[in-house]
Amino acid sequence: MDLKTELKKRADFFNIQLEKFLQGGSPEKLYDAMRHLPAAGGKRLRPVLSMISCEAVDGDIIKVVPLSIACELAHNFTLVHDDIMDKSKMRRGLPAVHMKYGEPTAIIAGDLLFTKAFESMHKTTVDVNVFKNVEYGLIDCIREISEGQQLDMEFEQRKIVSEDEYLEMIRKKTAVFFQYASEAGAILGGGTHEQSNALSQYGLNLGLGFQIWDDYLDISSDLKTLGKDIGNDIRNGKKTLIACHCLNNAKGEDKKILDELFGNLKATDEQVKKVYNVFKKTGSINYAKEKSEEFCKKAKLSLEKLPDTNAKKILTNLVEYATFKREK
Amino acid sequence: MDLKTELKKRADFFNIQLEKFLQGGSPEKLYDAMRHLPAAGGKRLRPVLSMISCEAVDGDIIKVVPLSIACELAHNFTLVHDDIMDKSKMRRGLPAVHMKYGEPTAIIAGDLLFTKAFESMHKTTVDVNVFKNVEYGLIDCIREISEGQQLDMEFEQRKIVSEDEYLEMIRKKTAVFFQYASEAGAILGGGTHEQSNALSQYGLNLGLGFQIWDDYLDISSDLKTLGKDIGNDIRNGKKTLIACHCLNNAKGEDKKILDELFGNLKATDEQVKKVYNVFKKTGSINYAKEKSEEFCKKAKLSLEKLPDTNAKKILTNLVEYATFKREK
Repeated sequence: MDLKTELKKRADFFNIQLEKFLQGGSPEKLYDAMRHLPAAGGKRLRPVLSMISCEAVDGDIIKVVPLSIACELAHNFTLVHDDIMDKSKMRRGLPAVHMKYGEPTAIIAGDLLFTKAFESMHKTTVDVNVFKNVEYGLIDCIREISEGQQLDMEFEQRKIVSEDEYLEMIRKKTAVFFQYASEAGAILGGGTHEQSNALSQYGLNLGLGFQIWDDYLDISSDLKTLGKDIGNDIRNGKKTLIACHCLNNAKGEDKKILDELFGNLKATDEQVKKVYNVFKKTGSINYAKEKSEEFCKKAKLSLEKLPDTNAKKILTNLVEYATFKREK
Repeated sequence: MDLKTELKKRADFFNIQLEKFLQGGSPEKLYDAMRHLPAAGGKRLRPVLSMISCEAVDGDIIKVVPLSIACELAHNFTLVHDDIMDKSKMRRGLPAVHMKYGEPTAIIAGDLLFTKAFESMHKTTVDVNVFKNVEYGLIDCIREISEGQQLDMEFEQRKIVSEDEYLEMIRKKTAVFFQYASEAGAILGGGTHEQSNALSQYGLNLGLGFQIWDDYLDISSDLKTLGKDIGNDIRNGKKTLIACHCLNNAKGEDKKILDELFGNLKATDEQVKKVYNVFKKTGSINYAKEKSEEFCKKAKLSLEKLPDTNAKKILTNLVEYATFKREK
């Protein structure tokens, strides 16, 4: 099995359905703005997760098309608004929606994506009680993502954040959506309670492993060049797991360096490098790597309760693809 | 029957339910920001409409509490985002959410209000198929409101807007929500198809009459003082029904005045006054007044299909309260 081929097959199928769902609409500028980000591609991790989870419980993926579209649109809605909040200029190699269409239209485009996500959910053809249950899951998921985004912003202003607080933040901001896509895919696919719980745990742990690996990747890939990302993250005092671990464990001179330079907008490149060295010396970079591996292991373990299928193999390999083997 | 007392009774009951529904939540700053606008009061027109519509078909208002909360929260969600787009500083006598909590938190607070609206809808206890139908109506409603807000912004940039285009814009931006609150209240109250259709027409026409009267009130109440609102509206080229009618009907010298001064940010107070006089001379101000009265008449007419109840009387009198007798 070639994982990339398997994922691409599903993403291609998904893209056709998504494009069809998003066509038309007036006023044109608003609908163009709404389509801008979904049409720009991306890994389609959430919709693909919901499809493979459905397959893993022997369900027909046609049944999860409305769910997978809803997941991708809701995810895109959060990205459009996040980019405004973070003043990000680019996304998926294109100008962010607010850069291309202006902030007012971008805010409405985000709201419209949210609306369209629920519009898609309503196309679900399963029993209406199951629909209600699964739709409520999406509402709950978006609530937690909003809370997570707020926490992420608040943490930047704080001197110290505990590991538990950090994990709760990324659980809300990232992992709940992976969890939801997997669990809901299994439910709509007709999986048993045990199976959908197993896939829920799979998605949750995959999401946690994925996000921590993201932090790790940011800092290790920039190591040699001391690129913009790591510099900005250190200057802004971004609370990654690496930073949280280090702030909670560094001692003596190292702690002084953090106090003075971490979250210091005026830190020079040389000073950023100093902080990086403290991260390394305290074992924080390695700690984050191990922690990500731990969650990935848990994700794989939770798959044991599923029957042996091609879908299960894909889910197993997807863990590595989304983390250790991920290309930046 | 004293209309104000009748409305207040329902608004007070609603406020207790709303406060209960919105309590708690973490992170606290985000939830405070979310509660800021709903807690600031307001006329509660949409929730009260859904309650009285329910009563008008002999339904128990307990059944529409989740709907009425959803309507108010969805309405507030659009206001929070609109205020960011329009850079409005105040709302309901308090600082706008983004002024008090900053723009990033205000964007998320709006998103969270949207989420909470659907969370409330899910508390509806009617048959699940009816729930699905009514919930879809809310989704559709928010889609149209988003389109209406975009149209409103685009119209400001245009030289001319036809009356039909204007009516379609306010239908989407304002009237669909009145329509939805009335119709859904009747459906959840167990009304017949004919009754809920009648209340749907009532809400639609009330909403159109309400919005046009708003435009009329803005210009006539500011007449003597030539206050800030009318000045800003004329300088920004705001396409009210008055402006649309005038732009489409003014001739000769009057047309030249509009071409030069309407939508001219640098227009002096004297020049604003000149535009106002053209509005008056062309009969546009009077035209808008008559148009509002026409929709109000239609709203009242649609009530004829309902049984004679106290609720019907309230709905009849509400038309005047929301328009001709409204206090600015």
